[in-house]
Amino acid sequence: MTTKPEEKYSLIIIGGGPAGMTASVYAARYEIKHLIITENIGGLTYGSHKIENFPSYPEIIGIELVQKMENQVKKLGGKFFLDKVNRIKRKNNVFQISTFSGNSFIAKTILLSYGTERNKLGVKGEKKLTGRGVSYCFTCDADFFKGRIVGIVGGGDSAVRAAIYLAKIARKVFLIYRGNQLKAGEKWQKMMLQRPNIETIQDNEIKEIIGKNRLEKVKLKNLFNQSDELLLDGLFIEIGGSPNQRLIRELSLETDLQGYIKINQEGKTNQRGIWAAGDITTGSNGFRQILTACAEGAIAVGSIHQYLSKIK
Amino acid sequence: MTTKPEEKYSLIIIGGGPAGMTASVYAARYEIKHLIITENIGGLTYGSHKIENFPSYPEIIGIELVQKMENQVKKLGGKFFLDKVNRIKRKNNVFQISTFSGNSFIAKTILLSYGTERNKLGVKGEKKLTGRGVSYCFTCDADFFKGRIVGIVGGGDSAVRAAIYLAKIARKVFLIYRGNQLKAGEKWQKMMLQRPNIETIQDNEIKEIIGKNRLEKVKLKNLFNQSDELLLDGLFIEIGGSPNQRLIRELSLETDLQGYIKINQEGKTNQRGIWAAGDITTGSNGFRQILTACAEGAIAVGSIHQYLSKIK
Repeated sequence: MTTKPEEKYSLIIIGGGPAGMTASVYAARYEIKHLIITENIGGLTYGSHKIENFPSYPEIIGIELVQKMENQVKKLGGKFFLDKVNRIKRKNNVFQISTFSGNSFIAKTILLSYGTERNKLGVKGEKKLTGRGVSYCFTCDADFFKGRIVGIVGGGDSAVRAAIYLAKIARKVFLIYRGNQLKAGEKWQKMMLQRPNIETIQDNEIKEIIGKNRLEKVKLKNLFNQSDELLLDGLFIEIGGSPNQRLIRELSLETDLQGYIKINQEGKTNQRGIWAAGDITTGSNGFRQILTACAEGAIAVGSIHQYLSKIK
Repeated sequence: MTTKPEEKYSLIIIGGGPAGMTASVYAARYEIKHLIITENIGGLTYGSHKIENFPSYPEIIGIELVQKMENQVKKLGGKFFLDKVNRIKRKNNVFQISTFSGNSFIAKTILLSYGTERNKLGVKGEKKLTGRGVSYCFTCDADFFKGRIVGIVGGGDSAVRAAIYLAKIARKVFLIYRGNQLKAGEKWQKMMLQRPNIETIQDNEIKEIIGKNRLEKVKLKNLFNQSDELLLDGLFIEIGGSPNQRLIRELSLETDLQGYIKINQEGKTNQRGIWAAGDITTGSNGFRQILTACAEGAIAVGSIHQYLSKIK
């Protein structure tokens, strides 16, 4: 049992991606005492290969944009506490937030901005071989597969972008997807056609991932080249993401059917004192861009500032 | 009468501030044939003194941020047409847009992002002496008043920020406002108290602006230091802004009571084929930041892209 006094904040931001960092910048400008509790700095943006649609940068890699945002947060006095939140309990008129490392904080308001987690296939062997050939981040891990054979699962933008990116590094790229039509934008599909070492496997699924110490092959649902097995050195799973539901359920937050937190135009959730911003929400018409995450973070803190002025 | 064929676009963006420029970036990524028609590049951001809350920049002046955005737009293939829109007419299923210089364009969709215009006092002498001592942009014109006496009209953030900024340049600054309480944030008010050469004149208004060729003095509604006249070298009017209503009325767009265009979560107005983004709208909870303008521009183009795919 800890005996040190709990640190008190007006706002605790949970999640340090673009939404959380922009929220901190605005909180600093309003002189709101706040802290960002996060497992990492930058969230999914950190692993973004090439960003061409963030205002003012014709082209920037994710890690660089994250570092610039982090620098801004720190310059304005914002602080990161690198940890994972375990429980959030409402206690009288404040929240008690405890982390897995055993730290505890008190906050008048909470902003949830911890984004989404990559979706898993949920098949045998996936967990065991993650980091041993199976990856959820092509920009992080592509370089391990120079001249090798890799598979990519998914048919959306991120899967096709992964295929294009990996085709420059790997010898052969298989793109495995369900149905007979890619969901990716035409532009990406056109670019993919220019890469002769990408082969698509449509109407198919992976049933099992096999390997003793490292990925060796995958078992397919339907035959491909007369076989239900495909030999692979690497497998990239690019089938989207969704918010982790643990805290959302504990806090009885309203979500849509996909599990995204419903927010109103101020970024408020259905629970008093709790706001949400970024990929984790239903906001910005579900557009989920780095830019819209930032804007949601700013708007939420504008609303939190008004709320804090009233309860003072 | 012009006989040259009208240029046809899928999207015409009217207004080249942060909302319009970000819209162009997204339109380019979607390969939407588009054009920005605007009187200037950057809108109000161009005159912004110091921006500390745009993600990734600890501090940047408006003109620099505008140039970076302009550079990005041009690099991705976006084009600016510097002109003022005169009329927008619906013609079958497209819009015909004519400018004051006599050019004419055809567009399948329109995005209105021309922001707000600075509010005027509406008193005698104001129009005549604008640019001759009377200004609506302290960052643009402050340097003309080194060692002189200036007045600022307004009680909000921008008026108080103007006072703080001008106090470093001018000899004496009068801040004239109605009522007996400033609306500006506490932070700005505190900073103002540290400047001994700022004097506030509360519960007062300017009735007339007087000067033969240049501003000489203003007439006050109520006495100040036993006089209803105040000698001034410069006068900065900082009483907010509002959208120009001319096109809004012609297009029968729904607005709120202040004249801001009502949009839904996709950025759509009440008129089919017309979207709006940025300061001109009721979006982003009325927060009206550079950041939220950008996000609104992006969201609108996401929706326009869907619309164009359907009507193809």
